[in-house]
Amino acid sequence: MDVWEQIIWKNILQIRNTSPLVHNITNYVVMNNTANAVLAVGASPVMSHAHPEIDDMVQICQSVVINIGTLDEYWVASMVRAAERASQLQKPWILDPVGAGATPYRNSVLEQLLAFKPTVIRGNASEILALAKHNPTTTKGVDSTAQSNEAVSAAQCLNREFGSIVCVSGETDIIVTGRQIYYVRNGSTMMTRVTGLGCSATAVIGAFIAGIENKAEAVLAATALFGISGEIAARQAAGTGSLQVLLLDKLYNITLEEIKQLIRVEAVNAA
Amino acid sequence: MDVWEQIIWKNILQIRNTSPLVHNITNYVVMNNTANAVLAVGASPVMSHAHPEIDDMVQICQSVVINIGTLDEYWVASMVRAAERASQLQKPWILDPVGAGATPYRNSVLEQLLAFKPTVIRGNASEILALAKHNPTTTKGVDSTAQSNEAVSAAQCLNREFGSIVCVSGETDIIVTGRQIYYVRNGSTMMTRVTGLGCSATAVIGAFIAGIENKAEAVLAATALFGISGEIAARQAAGTGSLQVLLLDKLYNITLEEIKQLIRVEAVNAA
Amino acid sequence: MDVWEQIIWKNILQIRNTSPLVHNITNYVVMNNTANAVLAVGASPVMSHAHPEIDDMVQICQSVVINIGTLDEYWVASMVRAAERASQLQKPWILDPVGAGATPYRNSVLEQLLAFKPTVIRGNASEILALAKHNPTTTKGVDSTAQSNEAVSAAQCLNREFGSIVCVSGETDIIVTGRQIYYVRNGSTMMTRVTGLGCSATAVIGAFIAGIENKAEAVLAATALFGISGEIAARQAAGTGSLQVLLLDKLYNITLEEIKQLIRVEAVNAA
Repeated sequence: MDVWEQIIWKNILQIRNTSPLVHNITNYVVMNNTANAVLAVGASPVMSHAHPEIDDMVQICQSVVINIGTLDEYWVASMVRAAERASQLQKPWILDPVGAGATPYRNSVLEQLLAFKPTVIRGNASEILALAKHNPTTTKGVDSTAQSNEAVSAAQCLNREFGSIVCVSGETDIIVTGRQIYYVRNGSTMMTRVTGLGCSATAVIGAFIAGIENKAEAVLAATALFGISGEIAARQAAGTGSLQVLLLDKLYNITLEEIKQLIRVEAVNAA
Repeated sequence: MDVWEQIIWKNILQIRNTSPLVHNITNYVVMNNTANAVLAVGASPVMSHAHPEIDDMVQICQSVVINIGTLDEYWVASMVRAAERASQLQKPWILDPVGAGATPYRNSVLEQLLAFKPTVIRGNASEILALAKHNPTTTKGVDSTAQSNEAVSAAQCLNREFGSIVCVSGETDIIVTGRQIYYVRNGSTMMTRVTGLGCSATAVIGAFIAGIENKAEAVLAATALFGISGEIAARQAAGTGSLQVLLLDKLYNITLEEIKQLIRVEAVNAA
Repeated sequence: MDVWEQIIWKNILQIRNTSPLVHNITNYVVMNNTANAVLAVGASPVMSHAHPEIDDMVQICQSVVINIGTLDEYWVASMVRAAERASQLQKPWILDPVGAGATPYRNSVLEQLLAFKPTVIRGNASEILALAKHNPTTTKGVDSTAQSNEAVSAAQCLNREFGSIVCVSGETDIIVTGRQIYYVRNGSTMMTRVTGLGCSATAVIGAFIAGIENKAEAVLAATALFGISGEIAARQAAGTGSLQVLLLDKLYNITLEEIKQLIRVEAVNAA
């Protein structure tokens, strides 16, 4: 069945053709790479966190990306205001709960942000579990220790409570909507040894929900694009430095043919 | 006529041989790349924004680069003080008005900075138009929507009002001085899909005005060097990730022969 | 004598196998690269500076890296608290005194941090001299102007006063412990033209002291690994952009064979 590659390719072209503007409030570590990932897929990133311009920036952008990786009090106020404003203006926004569960401070910030019902939440299994307060594991900093399949029920909880599409990254990426669960089996384990690739995946999803009406399709297309690009990059890479470079190259120049060859998606109806 | 490559090459060697110290107050997204661009051309970058050391840093450096990309209240105060101090000490400084026109906050900050008469202003056409308050277009975030040739009269306004050399980046880079307009037709459209290359061009110009007495020549040489390096890098690049890497390589190892082959500069006397 | 490569290799494997968690409070310019360097050698980086979570982050990590490159008042308070907490909990921590001697502000901040007796201090010769208040040279921003061998006695002073292992980076890296001085003659001069490689070396040492009991061996192994990786990367690199990429690749995939071929270490008993 070739329906997946058609859906993914249609949405990739949609972003390349419409170049939506994406407002990012993200962490210092990944800003350059996430901006480059957004540009590589054909969208336009804005990075801005100043209180006096948050409202204006949310206004002119088509989506908002909020990533708490290197949060502090000033940035948290920016994030909360941007989430509130996106919610008021009914603009799509995505939350990346980096390090959820690692400290009480992160948990309390995430509670504030969740109140504005993110369109999408993307994290690793540990983070999604912590976010759902189902966390039986100890979050090991910003790395994942839980298996992503254990996080499906946590993702479903979050989906029911906040209406968010939840994407759990891992060896298999799992996307939970109210109706279906998608399993995307692309990517490479070498990707876990490059900082901020999860954050870049979040930013690319942020670009896709900005320009695509069907949000489930947008998340699926962005996740598959990112996983396939990473898989191709990892095959060519001599190590983690070149993986990062080759991934951006592939996000920029991926073809339908490459997607056809590598795509491994499965959809299951939600129970 | 081979005068351009001689002027450019002489100035490139001047920076490599004198390694001027450049104080950068720039945005989070591009700090790593702009520091590497400054190092690649042979100069030495300092990145510092702390209020208690701004005066000292301006004092020990040969030029200042101010880029408002990810401004906030604390950083704006740093920028304004550095501009003031550079002006008092008659040190050359360059302003990159990232996102001018995107929000009222950016506009008001730029007004404060312009009061200290930057030696050079470098931006895309939208930003230069917004800065000259001639802006008939809607700035699309930090991307350019206006054609750079439409911005020449705006650049001339800024030159007359503030005495600044104004560099308008675009498919053709345009440099406006009081006496001449230079058109530099190098570069590649792929460069617009890498974040912060405009910021890196600004930082490289910042290095050249630090070490070269004739400021028009300094801006011309830096702009040509950057455009030619980007053009060579884009030919070799598989995508935007490798473009960024190859551009730094070329800024580091460019030869007179390469400049001779590719340089496309035209000078016109100002009306 | 093949003892050095055995010591180095054993410690490299130890980090790959235990993947210690390293808390970094570092500068904006290098965050991405230092996080990637820590990941490449097999450890896990956390980047966090928010006052409400400093204590928690120090608690869950095995070491702390403090780098003052782009300090300001908020970040200094984070750094001082993290150093204090690491000291109280007897966790190893490393100080990178970027730009020591460049401004009175940096000197006063470093004085506060030294009071918590860093396990390791790593800087260039100018910085180590400034730190020891033996500084007869003018620090040129964040670049080194003093020869690293002139800094040995400064390093010994710091070792006596604070009990720290002191690593002086330069053409030859010099490691001063209470008992011995190690000279590591690896690396490449091209490395000085890439921003933040000293900071990355510091972060890699931070990873090694997190997971290795013998701190002198940890510093030696990390320093040799970094120097040899840089040396191999520089041979293959077309310029400074690719050097940065290839260095990460090599930190990730270095082999015992490569270490054997290139290692140049000498140990001298302290006078």
